[in-house]
Amino acid sequence: MYEVEVKVAADLDAVADRLAELGAEQTGDVVQVDTYYDAPHRDFAETDEALRVRRETRDGETTARMTYKGPLVEAESKTREEYETGVDDGETTDTIFERLGFEPAATVRKDRRFYRYDGYTVTLDAVEDVGEFVEVEVETDRGDVEAAREGAFEVLRELGLDPQDQTRTSYLGMLLEDTP
Amino acid sequence: MYEVEVKVAADLDAVADRLAELGAEQTGDVVQVDTYYDAPHRDFAETDEALRVRRETRDGETTARMTYKGPLVEAESKTREEYETGVDDGETTDTIFERLGFEPAATVRKDRRFYRYDGYTVTLDAVEDVGEFVEVEVETDRGDVEAAREGAFEVLRELGLDPQDQTRTSYLGMLLEDTP
Repeated sequence: MYEVEVKVAADLDAVADRLAELGAEQTGDVVQVDTYYDAPHRDFAETDEALRVRRETRDGETTARMTYKGPLVEAESKTREEYETGVDDGETTDTIFERLGFEPAATVRKDRRFYRYDGYTVTLDAVEDVGEFVEVEVETDRGDVEAAREGAFEVLRELGLDPQDQTRTSYLGMLLEDTP
Repeated sequence: MYEVEVKVAADLDAVADRLAELGAEQTGDVVQVDTYYDAPHRDFAETDEALRVRRETRDGETTARMTYKGPLVEAESKTREEYETGVDDGETTDTIFERLGFEPAATVRKDRRFYRYDGYTVTLDAVEDVGEFVEVEVETDRGDVEAAREGAFEVLRELGLDPQDQTRTSYLGMLLEDTP
């Protein structure tokens, strides 16, 4: 399974208005607090991998999950292999990775509003200490990546955004860039 | 939290009879399939740590959890730090560790019958390709380890077993010893 994801900086109020005009369905909103880990045996910045433990609070209830993201397989749309599973206890998961020698590298906090539009997930992200962004995302098989990416660009255009403004830097990367 | 655990080889039918005589409550039985991992950056045999993903089938339903076990803090009773959390998907958990460079080292399969007796958990283990064992176990604070260990020895004696027969080798260790 591949995740095709296109992200641009945007004014979230303007995009929310446009989504309402288009009749897009708002499917939820969450607060996510993500801890990213450095590995003891390889440099994830070098290998282009990520290990994350995410806490997500929705309707007052917090769940946790852990995610491994592999290197890019398709650079244009930031497509990468992703493995994720829910965990019963986020703190214990943190502790297990720390005992194994992984070290917390950074924490990314964001408010996310999710919409469903034309088969895509459109996410409005307000990222603490980073800024406001819109992500257009879909999961697809490897053979359909190109078509999925073109569709994501079309959704951006309908939202009054320019696919040329796409940023391939992760929120983690942006946060670390801003860190002196 | 510390786990005090004492284990001896035993004839399980004889011990089950003795537990019935003592009025111990059988609290359940499960099949456990444990995958142990080798780390890419240190030798767990050397550091005396373990990383395990366990599948447990109880009443036809399979759950999974991951566990980190730290080095011994009290050799006599095999007391070690343990961190464990349930995971929604055991296969994904395996894949995440494998992508991070951990390699499956061995798989231990066992049928376990659990009893509750005198505040202790007594477990009757039939371990595939290894043998039959009884474990007497309790969780305790660090300060109470010695008393907990003495209590576990007393339970073994009541079951007709000799604490002197205690083995400190894990099932994983026994399985690997038997592997040519």
